[in-house]
Amino acid sequence: MPSSDPIATLLETYHDLNPSVVEEFPHQNEEPSPLEFLRYVSRNRPCVFRGAAKRWPALQKWDARFLRDAMRGRKVRVAVTPAGNADAVVEQATGELVFTEPHEIEESFEDFLDDVQNDSSATPPNKAKARNVKYAQTQNNNLPTEYSPLTPDLPPTLPFARIALNQSAEEGPEALNFWLGNARSTTALHKDNYENLYVAVRGRKHFVLLAPVEMACVNEGRVRRGRFVRDCASSSFSSSGAGAVDDDHGSETLKVEIDKDGEPLPVPLWDPDDPLKHTTPYSHLAQPLRVTLYEGDMLYLPAMWYHKVTQSVGDEGFACAVNYWYDMAFDSAFWASNCFLRDVVEAGRQRVVYPELDLAGEEEGGT
Amino acid sequence: MPSSDPIATLLETYHDLNPSVVEEFPHQNEEPSPLEFLRYVSRNRPCVFRGAAKRWPALQKWDARFLRDAMRGRKVRVAVTPAGNADAVVEQATGELVFTEPHEIEESFEDFLDDVQNDSSATPPNKAKARNVKYAQTQNNNLPTEYSPLTPDLPPTLPFARIALNQSAEEGPEALNFWLGNARSTTALHKDNYENLYVAVRGRKHFVLLAPVEMACVNEGRVRRGRFVRDCASSSFSSSGAGAVDDDHGSETLKVEIDKDGEPLPVPLWDPDDPLKHTTPYSHLAQPLRVTLYEGDMLYLPAMWYHKVTQSVGDEGFACAVNYWYDMAFDSAFWASNCFLRDVVEAGRQRVVYPELDLAGEEEGGT
Ligand SMILES: O=C(O)CCC(=O)C(=O)O
Ligand SMILES: O=C(O)CCC(=O)C(=O)O
Repeated sequence: MPSSDPIATLLETYHDLNPSVVEEFPHQNEEPSPLEFLRYVSRNRPCVFRGAAKRWPALQKWDARFLRDAMRGRKVRVAVTPAGNADAVVEQATGELVFTEPHEIEESFEDFLDDVQNDSSATPPNKAKARNVKYAQTQNNNLPTEYSPLTPDLPPTLPFARIALNQSAEEGPEALNFWLGNARSTTALHKDNYENLYVAVRGRKHFVLLAPVEMACVNEGRVRRGRFVRDCASSSFSSSGAGAVDDDHGSETLKVEIDKDGEPLPVPLWDPDDPLKHTTPYSHLAQPLRVTLYEGDMLYLPAMWYHKVTQSVGDEGFACAVNYWYDMAFDSAFWASNCFLRDVVEAGRQRVVYPELDLAGEEEGGT
Repeated sequence: MPSSDPIATLLETYHDLNPSVVEEFPHQNEEPSPLEFLRYVSRNRPCVFRGAAKRWPALQKWDARFLRDAMRGRKVRVAVTPAGNADAVVEQATGELVFTEPHEIEESFEDFLDDVQNDSSATPPNKAKARNVKYAQTQNNNLPTEYSPLTPDLPPTLPFARIALNQSAEEGPEALNFWLGNARSTTALHKDNYENLYVAVRGRKHFVLLAPVEMACVNEGRVRRGRFVRDCASSSFSSSGAGAVDDDHGSETLKVEIDKDGEPLPVPLWDPDDPLKHTTPYSHLAQPLRVTLYEGDMLYLPAMWYHKVTQSVGDEGFACAVNYWYDMAFDSAFWASNCFLRDVVEAGRQRVVYPELDLAGEEEGGT
């Protein structure tokens, strides 16, 4: 890669001028002021506020017994996947990469929590292949709706964020989400166009973060969409790897059904934890930041940052978290510059796939 | 220009998502709070604070008599140019464009102010060609030094800006500058890597502003540097157009002396007030913002914004202003993204100058 390549220079300049760690807010167990928070937002840089949520009732109350009681008799939507990889790129037997949504079921919260707790080891001795992984991860403002009995234990909005982001007191966050699962679930690398404040309530959350300017590193290729569905025909295994047929959702066989009519979707194909696969000429210039949230810690995850999230369970065999999504600003030059980078990266990919000198057309795209 | 050109798309996206006017702070005669100010900084968008400096002693005291008294016996550095265009691109008789610094003299403040006032019409009937234009514009933190008698009439720093920009109370602004001249002076389009707060004290200041993403519009070509110097040999005129020889600095003949050893400097060659000359394929996509500051108004001119500045004199035939420069943040993605845009624009210029298909090499670059 010549250093006169603008994309390589961008990555080098950015890394030269920014810390190679997630900053830690200097005041433990405190929320930032709106001004302090806006300083991070304005730089689009992540920051951990250690213990900032420690005194929230949720942190004090949410053990398995309390959650079961509060949610008794309620049904919740649960993502089910063979390997814990919802909304992730799954490689098919044909070699094709498919962005695969989870199989989604509805079940009683109590049954769901039982399953999560009973299957809570990241690498269970030999039942890893036997049972599907369950994760409550609907991200559709599920707290005030599905999980409404839990909302009194959380601030409905974070005033420091609302004020910094100049939102009216009435409008609240764009979404308030609840997450519950165990160490077998992984949220694949992706980005969201929201300013995110994420709080670990039980267990630990492990984030791998990449700045928006690292777009060229993550290999946003266009792949088809699919979804895990029940494989009714299968008796013991399917091509995409899954568990034995059973009568509960924990172990039925799932296969990937490809959406044949949908538009291919650009998704990061590169995984910072498997950095030699699905690379681009820029992947080696990525500098992923890693941070672990402990119970009561809050992470500011800035808009458009790539994030991959894994978790470790707490004392009771589950991990649970909440997060607040606030609208990002699309004005200023941030969004437009990000689109510009995408267009330049995309133009570069086109040049690689259809090399100018490939006059005879013998080769069908290189790597 | 195909709309699939990333640079054209960047300009269109930016303009679609941002106001096409300089925002006005909604509270007249008030400074912003640090948080309100940081919202503009974080979006890198200009804003006028009408009347925010109205109650400063400078606004109440600085008439010609007061300034003469306060500065009595002091010498100041004055920029002298034939046409009022200091630090501007001057076209030579050969057609070459040269970035030309002013002739700089030192004279008593009283003589300087006399000259400014006596020659204060933008288009003087027929002495325009006769007299050189004088402008106090040293921009080297001249207020606490050359103009120190005036500093008690101004805040030494702007607390709202210092706090928003997270600077310690001791360190003050990077520079506090004093500007005095008349309507014949123009500051050519340029950018500074400072956060700028600019206050009109006497007369009016007229700003034309272009966002940093409009870089491709302004035609930052590399030109040689030069400087206006006295033309001792000349008796009546020189190639660069100047006045008759005289014994004072107001009317001596000036010519451009080119710095033959210096590196050519990238400077904007496009002038938003003469938009059909020195264009690039993107100049027509620029959307210059225009704003006039009246006495007591303050402009936030964000880092890296291109600005061209002209002025109208007040009651007493001069215009005077002060400005505060604060260090900009080089972290975040802003600076790195700006360098990226520069590199992509530059790569495009190279492609235009050395067209790929010019195999025979008959043409020496196009326009
Ligand atoms: O907690 C997770 O598994 C993922 C969180 C996430 O992607 C988000 O908050 O945007
Ligand atoms: O007032 C002027 O003439 C120019 C001001 C300027 O360029 C600045 O404040 O950076």
